[in-house]
Amino acid sequence: MTDTAPLGRRVMALIDDLARHTDEPGRLTRLYLSPGHRATAEAVLGMMRAAGLEARLDAVGNVVGRREGARPGLPALVLGSHIDSVVDAGRYDGPLGVVCGLVAAEVLATEAAALPFALEVVAFGDEENVRFPTSLSTSKAWAGAYRPDWLDGADSEGVTLRAALTAFGGDPDGIAALARSPAEIAGYLEVHIEQGPMLEARDQPVGVVSAIAGLTRARCTVTGEANHAGTVPMGSRRDALAAAAEMALAVERLGAAAASAVATVGSLTVRPNAVNVIAGEVDFTLDIRAPEDPVRLGLVAAIEAECRAIAARRGVGFAGETFMDNPAVGLDAGLRAALESAARGFGFDPPALASGATHDAVSMARLGPSAMLFVRCRGGISHNPAESITEADADAAVRVLIETVRALAARG
Amino acid sequence: MTDTAPLGRRVMALIDDLARHTDEPGRLTRLYLSPGHRATAEAVLGMMRAAGLEARLDAVGNVVGRREGARPGLPALVLGSHIDSVVDAGRYDGPLGVVCGLVAAEVLATEAAALPFALEVVAFGDEENVRFPTSLSTSKAWAGAYRPDWLDGADSEGVTLRAALTAFGGDPDGIAALARSPAEIAGYLEVHIEQGPMLEARDQPVGVVSAIAGLTRARCTVTGEANHAGTVPMGSRRDALAAAAEMALAVERLGAAAASAVATVGSLTVRPNAVNVIAGEVDFTLDIRAPEDPVRLGLVAAIEAECRAIAARRGVGFAGETFMDNPAVGLDAGLRAALESAARGFGFDPPALASGATHDAVSMARLGPSAMLFVRCRGGISHNPAESITEADADAAVRVLIETVRALAARG
Repeated sequence: MTDTAPLGRRVMALIDDLARHTDEPGRLTRLYLSPGHRATAEAVLGMMRAAGLEARLDAVGNVVGRREGARPGLPALVLGSHIDSVVDAGRYDGPLGVVCGLVAAEVLATEAAALPFALEVVAFGDEENVRFPTSLSTSKAWAGAYRPDWLDGADSEGVTLRAALTAFGGDPDGIAALARSPAEIAGYLEVHIEQGPMLEARDQPVGVVSAIAGLTRARCTVTGEANHAGTVPMGSRRDALAAAAEMALAVERLGAAAASAVATVGSLTVRPNAVNVIAGEVDFTLDIRAPEDPVRLGLVAAIEAECRAIAARRGVGFAGETFMDNPAVGLDAGLRAALESAARGFGFDPPALASGATHDAVSMARLGPSAMLFVRCRGGISHNPAESITEADADAAVRVLIETVRALAARG
Repeated sequence: MTDTAPLGRRVMALIDDLARHTDEPGRLTRLYLSPGHRATAEAVLGMMRAAGLEARLDAVGNVVGRREGARPGLPALVLGSHIDSVVDAGRYDGPLGVVCGLVAAEVLATEAAALPFALEVVAFGDEENVRFPTSLSTSKAWAGAYRPDWLDGADSEGVTLRAALTAFGGDPDGIAALARSPAEIAGYLEVHIEQGPMLEARDQPVGVVSAIAGLTRARCTVTGEANHAGTVPMGSRRDALAAAAEMALAVERLGAAAASAVATVGSLTVRPNAVNVIAGEVDFTLDIRAPEDPVRLGLVAAIEAECRAIAARRGVGFAGETFMDNPAVGLDAGLRAALESAARGFGFDPPALASGATHDAVSMARLGPSAMLFVRCRGGISHNPAESITEADADAAVRVLIETVRALAARG
């Protein structure tokens, strides 16, 4: 049997190897600074060293490997992504970009002495922001945008980020020194699964990301009146759950009506949450994204107005608090063109895609030209164990990445 | 200051005394067989003995006190209610009926030798059915309708009812012998807060319950597809939370359209319940009640059909499982007339009210003529710390109860 996709096979094997490390037996969960994260970081360190990179864990738990270029100390072209995950995750979201960077570094090993930049591979640690109330904290540390108050945030068990980072072997006092200067960064290239259905629909293995959508997140609370489910007539109720249900449907309807936007109620918690008690209070979250900031901000305002109208009509209280408001980030035109050109060189026709998901490239774009290559994933499914890509598409992605690095080197 | 309501004051003082016992500091929670239940049962035992009753805990943890009538061994007129509670409860739901029975027994002490029945006061222990998957288990033990498999049911901590009952000092092997014969029961009278707004609206302290609504409870599960909240277009989602929200609104709409019925989604749980993940699965409960069984069964069928239609249109799975299906229970015409007549003797105009809530009277109606007296509560609020009644209304209730006992005695 001819090995038609040896680099893709290598990528898949390394990803499978990393997928063994988890916080929960039977499913893949790697929260930032958890034992599963630590084990994965150790495995990546080993892979980097085996590839001949100078590798280490930095003060916030990122794994970073470096190979000097034509001379020591040149600005670095950084290849990578993240190794933390959501709860009950798939194996490709994050690790694909880290492993593509690693395999690219392996392939380019013999060419390193001629490169006009150093090559770095990075595995960021806090992209999913599931455990602590942070936002891309580990890549923002590189961008000099780490917020010191993040260290005081706690996970659901009450463990602070500071305590978890110290236990992990990181160094809260060393975070400020992680900030890189733009002069040190030649660029950033991140390979990532699409997490959406467009590449499958277009029958293309890869696409080039045009922009990363802006993102608003808010916590909302509906306050009704807890009462007996058997004795209060339907017309006399102030049912917080029914009100929140009407709000969730409004979020869905308004999100669908806004151009290229998405709006999601992903979390909803009911108190007292008993079969025989009308709900007294409901908390829910909003996650609202669009590649155009005016669209997003208009949608946020429309949803808030609709929630307030529903609350007023039902005689319940409504309070919403925005805790994330990230503008859309455009990616570097030069790097996008280089990725597209490399893909065309293999006969692909890569579409330009907006990313609805946030990525570490948002942080890295503060330091230097940054771009992302999306890889087709089955059914557009992600954040789910059913996440899946093909070996052939992994092969296409890593080859496009390698050729892009060569083209950037040739450009000088 | 003249004491205008001495019996009401006594009732309120005893209820306040019982309200000190709870499983949770700072709020009133007395789950069946919990330490708070045990402490309350001991307090009721003490009150019964102080009132000169022969009192004991029975094999399922009911507190029962008895005073013989004109001769030992006469059938008993049972007065009572329950002392278990929901989580974060009010103090009147249950204890009011127990304490009214106690105060009636105190007042009637000197008349006992002339009564053509024994007087019993009971404090049932498992009316709210919050801790274990049971249904009025402690009064059903008296009615000979205890289901032995209830003993194997477990609470949220995994403790079985059997283990909890044994630890409480009860006797799983003694439950069968609790079954009373109809020949032993002269009748059952339960005083209870209305838990609804009708008496307040009619400006009456008490009402006579005509029937206890039938009750269907079901657990439903909506299965969608967990996916990334940022990357999946609105039109490509199978959002279990949005589907469940639409179902919850249908439950509310159909419940409001059915005569005298109520329909409630009181509990709803989302998986994975994360801000950035489209919900993959949602569980919710249904609680559907009506005083007319055909109305209730028609409403259950309509809700199920609507949930299935919503699921089909949205491409999500829907499964519903009924776990409670109790027919409506009519109360005894003779006892109802006696309560009404006694109330009119005090100048009240007691309305006939259907009870949307289930009560231990459902079990006792299997053993003998049973009836209930509802007492006005502020705002119709119950299952809530804001539950409230007045001393004057407590006084009215206990006086109506005492006069009803006297009238039944006179009837012979």
